[in-house]
Amino acid sequence: MKRFLAFLLLINLLVSAAFADEGMWTFDNPPLKQWKEKYGFEPSKEWLDRVRLASVKFPGASGVFVSPNGLIATNHHVASGFIERLSSKERDLLKNGFYAKTQAEELKVPDGNVQILHSYENVTERVHSAARAGSTDADAAAKRTAEIAAIEKDCPAGLRCEVVSLYSGGEYWKYRFKRYTDVRLVMAPEEQAAFFGGDYDNFVFPRHDLDFTFVRVYENDKPASTPNYLKWSATGAPEGEFIIASGYPGSTARLLTVAQLAYQRDIGNPLQEKVWKTRRKALEDYSKLGAEQLRQANPGMRSLANSLKRLEGQQNGLLNPRNFAKKEAEEKDLRDKLAAKPDLNKQYSPAWEAIAKAYSELPSKANQIAFSSLASSRLATIAQQIVTYHIETAKADGQRYPEFRESRLDAFRSSLLSPAPSYSEMEQAALTAWMAEARSVLGANDPFIKAALGEAEPAEVVGRAIRETKLLDPAARKALLDGGAAAVAASTDPLVTLARRVEPVIRELRSWSEKNILAVETSNGTKIAQARFAVYGKNMPPDANSHLRLCYGVVKGYEEDTTLVPYRTTFFGLYDRALSFDEKDPFHLPESVKNARSKIDLATPLNFVYTADTIGGNSGSPVVNRRGEVVGLNFDSNNQKLSNRYWYIEENEGSRAVGVHSAGILEALRKIYGTEALVSELLGS
Amino acid sequence: MKRFLAFLLLINLLVSAAFADEGMWTFDNPPLKQWKEKYGFEPSKEWLDRVRLASVKFPGASGVFVSPNGLIATNHHVASGFIERLSSKERDLLKNGFYAKTQAEELKVPDGNVQILHSYENVTERVHSAARAGSTDADAAAKRTAEIAAIEKDCPAGLRCEVVSLYSGGEYWKYRFKRYTDVRLVMAPEEQAAFFGGDYDNFVFPRHDLDFTFVRVYENDKPASTPNYLKWSATGAPEGEFIIASGYPGSTARLLTVAQLAYQRDIGNPLQEKVWKTRRKALEDYSKLGAEQLRQANPGMRSLANSLKRLEGQQNGLLNPRNFAKKEAEEKDLRDKLAAKPDLNKQYSPAWEAIAKAYSELPSKANQIAFSSLASSRLATIAQQIVTYHIETAKADGQRYPEFRESRLDAFRSSLLSPAPSYSEMEQAALTAWMAEARSVLGANDPFIKAALGEAEPAEVVGRAIRETKLLDPAARKALLDGGAAAVAASTDPLVTLARRVEPVIRELRSWSEKNILAVETSNGTKIAQARFAVYGKNMPPDANSHLRLCYGVVKGYEEDTTLVPYRTTFFGLYDRALSFDEKDPFHLPESVKNARSKIDLATPLNFVYTADTIGGNSGSPVVNRRGEVVGLNFDSNNQKLSNRYWYIEENEGSRAVGVHSAGILEALRKIYGTEALVSELLGS
Repeated sequence: MKRFLAFLLLINLLVSAAFADEGMWTFDNPPLKQWKEKYGFEPSKEWLDRVRLASVKFPGASGVFVSPNGLIATNHHVASGFIERLSSKERDLLKNGFYAKTQAEELKVPDGNVQILHSYENVTERVHSAARAGSTDADAAAKRTAEIAAIEKDCPAGLRCEVVSLYSGGEYWKYRFKRYTDVRLVMAPEEQAAFFGGDYDNFVFPRHDLDFTFVRVYENDKPASTPNYLKWSATGAPEGEFIIASGYPGSTARLLTVAQLAYQRDIGNPLQEKVWKTRRKALEDYSKLGAEQLRQANPGMRSLANSLKRLEGQQNGLLNPRNFAKKEAEEKDLRDKLAAKPDLNKQYSPAWEAIAKAYSELPSKANQIAFSSLASSRLATIAQQIVTYHIETAKADGQRYPEFRESRLDAFRSSLLSPAPSYSEMEQAALTAWMAEARSVLGANDPFIKAALGEAEPAEVVGRAIRETKLLDPAARKALLDGGAAAVAASTDPLVTLARRVEPVIRELRSWSEKNILAVETSNGTKIAQARFAVYGKNMPPDANSHLRLCYGVVKGYEEDTTLVPYRTTFFGLYDRALSFDEKDPFHLPESVKNARSKIDLATPLNFVYTADTIGGNSGSPVVNRRGEVVGLNFDSNNQKLSNRYWYIEENEGSRAVGVHSAGILEALRKIYGTEALVSELLGS
Repeated sequence: MKRFLAFLLLINLLVSAAFADEGMWTFDNPPLKQWKEKYGFEPSKEWLDRVRLASVKFPGASGVFVSPNGLIATNHHVASGFIERLSSKERDLLKNGFYAKTQAEELKVPDGNVQILHSYENVTERVHSAARAGSTDADAAAKRTAEIAAIEKDCPAGLRCEVVSLYSGGEYWKYRFKRYTDVRLVMAPEEQAAFFGGDYDNFVFPRHDLDFTFVRVYENDKPASTPNYLKWSATGAPEGEFIIASGYPGSTARLLTVAQLAYQRDIGNPLQEKVWKTRRKALEDYSKLGAEQLRQANPGMRSLANSLKRLEGQQNGLLNPRNFAKKEAEEKDLRDKLAAKPDLNKQYSPAWEAIAKAYSELPSKANQIAFSSLASSRLATIAQQIVTYHIETAKADGQRYPEFRESRLDAFRSSLLSPAPSYSEMEQAALTAWMAEARSVLGANDPFIKAALGEAEPAEVVGRAIRETKLLDPAARKALLDGGAAAVAASTDPLVTLARRVEPVIRELRSWSEKNILAVETSNGTKIAQARFAVYGKNMPPDANSHLRLCYGVVKGYEEDTTLVPYRTTFFGLYDRALSFDEKDPFHLPESVKNARSKIDLATPLNFVYTADTIGGNSGSPVVNRRGEVVGLNFDSNNQKLSNRYWYIEENEGSRAVGVHSAGILEALRKIYGTEALVSELLGS
């Protein structure tokens, strides 16, 4: 009976998959068949190349070139890290917004950088054959890493190369990136307009957010030439229109084994929640000290609130037995089919047990791995990175931690030396609270706690370290970086000495994890991917991993509870939601929006929804119609979609991506912000 | 463990009840203690009398006097039966709305009548002592009925008296009603404005409905003098304001035993759903024949859709094991406490078993009782009522069916002889479909089916009966009513002969049900009510039964899923929702609303929510502030509240009543409908 039910579930899965707008597809393998059959859409190579080259990668998110002169549109919440770095107590651009009437007024972002995927090449065979020479999983991992480092080193001038693993190691691709390191702020609305409704309305639709920002990349102090930009649609997309979103989805976990998913559900996610809540609580406490403290803490709190709300939705999905049963049925189907082919079965079948065995050991180390960290403080993280940098760069390229490979050192240095502001008092509060919680979780005798605190109190150790550190000053960081291992060893900076004390502990945990978990899951994940290809063919996209992907669907409303949710909202809805709450926070309107009420055409669409299979990281992705025009900027998903980290969720369950409408952005630029030059540039007029 | 959990549930229940805005209270026992302690509200006797006398009972719903000259405000969907009777193919007032600029233009509603609760008197002891003389439940029922008829007959001139049972027969009250039989339509918006969003948005909030209508009662062809009217508030109620709703809630089932609830869940509700779906399907099929057919069928379809959506919500509540466990814990607590008092226990404890035993026999008869009916056709119902009328009125008053007691015959005659239009073709379609379904459910050999159809097809019997009947003409009905039993016996009208054939079958089923179910549950329900009074005191209100009640609470938004729902909507929201759907049905706007867009102050509140414990029948109830002003008209509840038929639902679960805002009604009257005279009368200016 149970078998039969599992079979029914699977049939249901396979049948619906045939009609689903599923997947975050790589540009080397776009779902051309589905597009043609379901939507009659057959893009040319030029169409695909143009969309790829217009798709901009931000740190952890996406954007799009929208003029030939380096103009990029993205979400406000994507650019908020940039805007924050340009803000101070006296000039709060996050709160008040910004517009550069001329290019001369555009503000250069400290350590601002973005990149595009210039080109790519399949290197699977090189990496696999290197790994096959390894005698154990750990040995294979070392050989694989060395080969990857060698491939990355072979890179054209002006580009950065990275080997990217797809399908849990089933494929490896060499991606070549073009990087822009001069990014300037052009226009940003007030955060309250961009994030109207705050955390309450996050992951909710109907939605009313002006979540957009414009930046421009420069080369040689001139606006970069970006001929592969996408045109801005003045009208946007009507209901039913086919659209594609192109961007950098962060991470999915759809190809994980049941053992890996069960670990996430039972240990990983609850632990992650605890970590984030600890960090959020520290920032919240700090933010209550005053207006300036609130300004400093706000970006961090917002980001953590977003992460926590998303995690809760994902975890609810995992906790739903019906969903989990589907994953079990999927795995069972693959293994049953494999069992019918004895040669394949012998080769691949042990992979599941190997992963399950590795994961059975993880819970005993999970707390240590999660809490042995200085990540809650940016300054402490910098100190730790400097210490680790010298240890790693003393090794051959192929033996280093991936983030210290030659191909990544430029980005590492510019991030480390970024003049972006830090706030000592906030760092001190955050790290003190973190260390107190870590001690409470791990106990006073834990190696990390002993190394960090000895017998002292968190407030004492952290207070002195943050108060007395010179690392606030990028010049001090540079001196330690350039001074070599000796400079670090000699440093008496108390934050550096703290980092030196904990480094061996963190290194040992990482080493345990790489050997016992990562190496095992990579080797065996590769086998499972190969088994999947052998049984089903390569008819599904790989899990997302912060690299460029295409997803697609239609603009479409949905049913929720017993009523209909429309496919879009209008400016009418923005004023309704604000006034329905008597403009109580977080539903108040910035003055600019209030004042523009009589000028705005209130019927203009503001936000809209579509069935594309996006996930965190797709924020700022252009939503593109058949003609390659930008009809909106993706900025969120609704609640119904949150557990799509673990599986695709059918559109008839109401899962939708949420975008800012291209016409709504134009109307806001014209009537609220009076940015005529920017409108002209967008419309190419 | 199970006992302990039940105990915890109960504690939770009792603790929260202390703070809850629970109950539909009679005017003889308003929750003065709760009002005073929680809200500092201590109304005078005059305040309560005025609200009672201003509260108008419509057929199945509520309204309120809002001027000294007989002007009544209610919901459009409450008055829609009246408006329908004034409509025709040529003059569709439901669709197009109506406004009488002068009193002379006000339209008299065929058989329109409303009433108020003039005064009341406790007659519990008279009824109980009469019943105590009965030797069996059935004998007690007969004696009780006779006593009630005698009490009702003793009634002042100009009033109508009715004995009302409260607390499952724990109390009996004599209610005296003043009845108004000349009701005229003053103003109604278009149905699409009143019911914007249609069945989708029914039981949903945020909501955007102009669900109001004004009628006026006349006496001696002059506007009735109604000094006990309530003033109209031009501003309405802000969030947090204490409000009272006064109206005629139809029916709750909170004091039922677990056996009765289980019957509803397992048999009663699913059967009711089947009956209503059968009727709705017939109307839907008919409505597809053309625009005029759609007009005719629309009120019935709307009413059935509303009933079905409500039933589904109620049934979902019953199917929730946690809810049901609460009811079991409640019953167990009462019976445990009773068990501690042996004298009471001996007297009352068998009541639960008696009811459970009676209900165990009901399933075998339930289909017959539900489907042996002509109720899907108004004309057939009239025929059946005429046949039954002569049988019943031949008996002594105290032995008749309650609806044929002398005290109710005036209302019966005016309803029966009402010139309200009927539509033969729709009646024929509806009754044919009904008989076909009844035959399919009951089988061709069922007594009702054999009596109604013999060996013929439903279409044949019903077709002839409806085509050839003279009962469309009220004069023909009057002739049969006044002609006595002989006229009915001699009639060859095929609808009358159909009614004559099925009458004995329906009578036998009713008799079975009265003897085996109603008599048992009344006698034993009375005992349980007395047991409850003895254990807890009289600290809870009786179940609703279509008589006047007070409920109360505060204007307050709520949390739903992960966001906030505001306490109100505005006209901005109405235009947003229409345009977000591209004005697709049922989200299109009437021309009047479209045209008024630039004139309306869009920030004016439109609908609002509050925590009062209302239920179906409360539609049209005035929502009243401390000063006795009307701040809105109750017209709906949200989904979260639907299962409150069976238990009170805490406000922190998001259950809310929904009203049309008094300021929104004024704005619509002024800017959309230009009804200045009506506005002046409302504001007393």
